[in-house]
Amino acid sequence: MRIVAAKKILKANEQTAAENRERLAAERIYGVNLVGSPGCGKTTLLESLFRRLEGRASPAVIEGDIAGQIDADRMAKIGVPVVQINTDGMCHLDANMIAAATDDLDCRGVDVLVIENVGNLVCTAGYDLGEHLRIVVLSVPEGDDKLVKYPAIFQRSDALVVTKMDLLPHTNFDMERVTGDMKRLAPEATIFAVSAIKGDGMDELADWFVETKNTTIRKGG
Amino acid sequence: MRIVAAKKILKANEQTAAENRERLAAERIYGVNLVGSPGCGKTTLLESLFRRLEGRASPAVIEGDIAGQIDADRMAKIGVPVVQINTDGMCHLDANMIAAATDDLDCRGVDVLVIENVGNLVCTAGYDLGEHLRIVVLSVPEGDDKLVKYPAIFQRSDALVVTKMDLLPHTNFDMERVTGDMKRLAPEATIFAVSAIKGDGMDELADWFVETKNTTIRKGG
Repeated sequence: MRIVAAKKILKANEQTAAENRERLAAERIYGVNLVGSPGCGKTTLLESLFRRLEGRASPAVIEGDIAGQIDADRMAKIGVPVVQINTDGMCHLDANMIAAATDDLDCRGVDVLVIENVGNLVCTAGYDLGEHLRIVVLSVPEGDDKLVKYPAIFQRSDALVVTKMDLLPHTNFDMERVTGDMKRLAPEATIFAVSAIKGDGMDELADWFVETKNTTIRKGG
Repeated sequence: MRIVAAKKILKANEQTAAENRERLAAERIYGVNLVGSPGCGKTTLLESLFRRLEGRASPAVIEGDIAGQIDADRMAKIGVPVVQINTDGMCHLDANMIAAATDDLDCRGVDVLVIENVGNLVCTAGYDLGEHLRIVVLSVPEGDDKLVKYPAIFQRSDALVVTKMDLLPHTNFDMERVTGDMKRLAPEATIFAVSAIKGDGMDELADWFVETKNTTIRKGG
């Protein structure tokens, strides 16, 4: 019975996600779902990416957290329109939350909506939010075995961004192992390795991001 | 309706957890639930801790992972009896899984059972497994804001172990902030700061671990 209930919930979520995707496409907004472990550096990545999008994209953000508004404050500080969702214990965002949050967001002039999901490498994998692009973040200090342990979320992502590359010399992280596992799990996915605080790899990521955004918006989502 | 179902499941889990706890106490085994984000260093912490327990404790381990048996292999390599649970997508262990896994484990001569939970800072918080002690692990590179963002799991833990202290010089992690937040969320909890690979702080953690184990077993769980 629990399985049936879960299936029903997921089906309802897919329906709402499809509506979200249509709505974003109609407004010519590129929707991005950013997932990863707690502390993998999602917010720092956005701060660094958004600086490099100036003049080429106008982002807004939905922040998902169990509690608090630390990340929303960081986005507001760099002048990005933001709505904070507090899930109050829920382990992932779902399409309904995004539909409600989008109503609260001033999207005039916006052409990118990044949804920063709750830090969770498991539960976020199963929920389509209506995004056009899903990016999974893996930080170097988390270790190179995460794709084997948490395959679903990597399998269902369009891009992998390996963050905190500046910490590489202090760890035994094997980038080749990660690249190999990702190619096996998601052969179509694009892979980046960056240091958001030092800037390494960020220009390449930003250029690719703008290109996929423009292509997606041109063909109508 | 979804909420009622969830409450029922949690109530059934509490019942089984209580049975697990009684069974462990009857067998004079100290049960430990180890929780934390993916890649926070739970397995490396155990490898380092177990070396320091020699002659003072005989551990066995239940490894919880979505997929794979990387961590179980690491435990077997250092000669620790181990059972791997693959949750096949489930985001946390529950008391039923522990009851089943304990049946599969050869506990002769064992006086510590460490359950390494699925890497998840959210969903593991709500499930009592029948442990005597819950340890939450936070690694330095995850950042010092995690207690504000994921309060429940810290609130419900008996000890906090901050790992990867060797990476501290390369981050902006503020240990005082973490200590302050933990004292506010869980005033009774004990706090450690360690580097499992360098060894810093590990002797202190091991001594405390042995002491709480002996006290718990003496008073019957």
